[in-house]
Amino acid sequence: MTVFNFSAGPAVLPVPVLLKAQSELLNYQGSGQSVLELSHRSALFETILNETESLLRELLEVPDGYHVLFLQGGATLQFSMLPLNLATNQHLIDFIDTGSWSQKAIQDAQVYAKTRIIASSASNLYRSIPTDPVVSDADYLHITWNNTLEGTTYTHVPQVDVPLVADFSSSILSEPIDISQFDLIYAGAQKNLGSAGMTLVIIKDDLLERTPALLGSYLRYDTHATHHSLYNTPPTYSIYLTKLVLEWIKEQGFETVVRRNRQQAAALYTYLDQSTLFSNAVALTDRSRMNIPFTTGQTDLDEQFLKFAERNQLVNLKGHRSVGGMRASLYNAMPTSGVDALLDALHRFEQGER
Amino acid sequence: MTVFNFSAGPAVLPVPVLLKAQSELLNYQGSGQSVLELSHRSALFETILNETESLLRELLEVPDGYHVLFLQGGATLQFSMLPLNLATNQHLIDFIDTGSWSQKAIQDAQVYAKTRIIASSASNLYRSIPTDPVVSDADYLHITWNNTLEGTTYTHVPQVDVPLVADFSSSILSEPIDISQFDLIYAGAQKNLGSAGMTLVIIKDDLLERTPALLGSYLRYDTHATHHSLYNTPPTYSIYLTKLVLEWIKEQGFETVVRRNRQQAAALYTYLDQSTLFSNAVALTDRSRMNIPFTTGQTDLDEQFLKFAERNQLVNLKGHRSVGGMRASLYNAMPTSGVDALLDALHRFEQGER
Repeated sequence: MTVFNFSAGPAVLPVPVLLKAQSELLNYQGSGQSVLELSHRSALFETILNETESLLRELLEVPDGYHVLFLQGGATLQFSMLPLNLATNQHLIDFIDTGSWSQKAIQDAQVYAKTRIIASSASNLYRSIPTDPVVSDADYLHITWNNTLEGTTYTHVPQVDVPLVADFSSSILSEPIDISQFDLIYAGAQKNLGSAGMTLVIIKDDLLERTPALLGSYLRYDTHATHHSLYNTPPTYSIYLTKLVLEWIKEQGFETVVRRNRQQAAALYTYLDQSTLFSNAVALTDRSRMNIPFTTGQTDLDEQFLKFAERNQLVNLKGHRSVGGMRASLYNAMPTSGVDALLDALHRFEQGER
Repeated sequence: MTVFNFSAGPAVLPVPVLLKAQSELLNYQGSGQSVLELSHRSALFETILNETESLLRELLEVPDGYHVLFLQGGATLQFSMLPLNLATNQHLIDFIDTGSWSQKAIQDAQVYAKTRIIASSASNLYRSIPTDPVVSDADYLHITWNNTLEGTTYTHVPQVDVPLVADFSSSILSEPIDISQFDLIYAGAQKNLGSAGMTLVIIKDDLLERTPALLGSYLRYDTHATHHSLYNTPPTYSIYLTKLVLEWIKEQGFETVVRRNRQQAAALYTYLDQSTLFSNAVALTDRSRMNIPFTTGQTDLDEQFLKFAERNQLVNLKGHRSVGGMRASLYNAMPTSGVDALLDALHRFEQGER
């Protein structure tokens, strides 16, 4: 059975990546061992780790002066590690509140520091990204680049004089990022980078000096930077899968992937905007290319559509429980044929098919 | 090429587990999705999670009144989480020091609480487990059940009136544990449970009440207990692999696995004890069945043996860099043919073959 998986994460992976993982699952490069069995101290795994890092540096054009870390615990552990490591001077963090994931970051930060919301799109029901200039004198400013639930994305980098920290979990590697404008970015791997269980952190070297003396070893960015993510056993298989995903991107060319993402999102938005049944409420300028929420405006009709979609092998289109409706996540691995199948189903449903 | 992998972890996995993982890598139970692509909120993944938990409860005979948690960050993150959650009354933790991993746990605990070593085998170069009765009035007593580097293991549970916390990373599921005698046990999955990236925590319910109000959400045991390890995205594929490993154990019968472990370790110790070239220095009563260090006593001869072993497809026998010599890790997935091949190589090397 072929299905198209529109899950917000863990999410669809490229078929060539899965085939490659399958083909070498029992015997990695003639070693007689599975990648799952490789010691993290083995030469074979160190090569995997180094290649993953250099592919990331190449595709994301990471400038010199940044460390690339492979951690665990998802964005959620970052919500604690960030204040613990970085809010060590003023004990004050500024946030731009763009919805659900911003708020989760704020909640955890409040445990460790004073927090301040210096801009918010709450009054607009988070259907846009605040664009007014912001001023911060906190230890850092935190933003959520792509908002998985609300379907919004930044398209500009806020300019502030303090370190800028950004959650890129749901849009990393879907478009180019000018890393030099950030001091730390982080992303769970389970959307665009690979599998659940690995968290990418790219941190400017000078931030590593902020970590206080009294902090447990796993929670310190400097531990992982000093030990090249090998202080303790890293999520070896997740790192390997990320390597395969990066190779898949590189093979096609990153610009090809970016162009396809834009075309696919544009096709869905174009349909939704002309539809008299379905709609997306996000401000035109701030629409996410990765997560596209839409609704008929009627709960029972949304339910009907979700069932209709499933019968047509379009799965995981249900919107987040806090938002309702539908959500199509169009990560890098979603093929154009998947978007076409979704458009076809939307059209047929709108025509009355059930 | 067939090799026998004696790595201390990540380590050898059962071939039937790898074959099963390979066969369903692209299409899990006819869903058209890989387990790697399953949303952690999907019914399919929730079933995997529930089955993994109930297999663990069955095989380890976990009594009622304990939560089973699937976390990330390895034992190393537990070294912070334990004091943060549990050392909240007296801010005092007692330790029995049995070597390298005890010391890592102590080091991190010192960040958060006072620590006290109430027994130690340091004077004996960690070649045994302290057996004198201990008294504790701390928030909890921490022990390291099996000592991966030193090759020692507890065979008795220390009796104290405070909660007992134990690191079972390198021996979980290699032998029965009387969980009722512990208040919290934890183990990284990459030795006996599956793959790197998942950490098992089994915690007595009343300990969950110790977590202080001010602690970030990921770092709280109560977060994960309340949300059944689904507060944030868990390491879904690692959990699935653990399920396959548990099914593999159950299929043979846990007692069969335990018996094989005992026989294999006994065979290697018997050889080492009669050898005039190789030896193991651990006290007879405290020898680990999972990690067996041995040496010729001469660095260059050890090196020669390691090369000889590799030429005979016996890999990852090098001892930890802090100990030197050799170490054979005989986890559940090590087949008897692997131990036989090692014994054969030891014998031939001792006979002068190079």
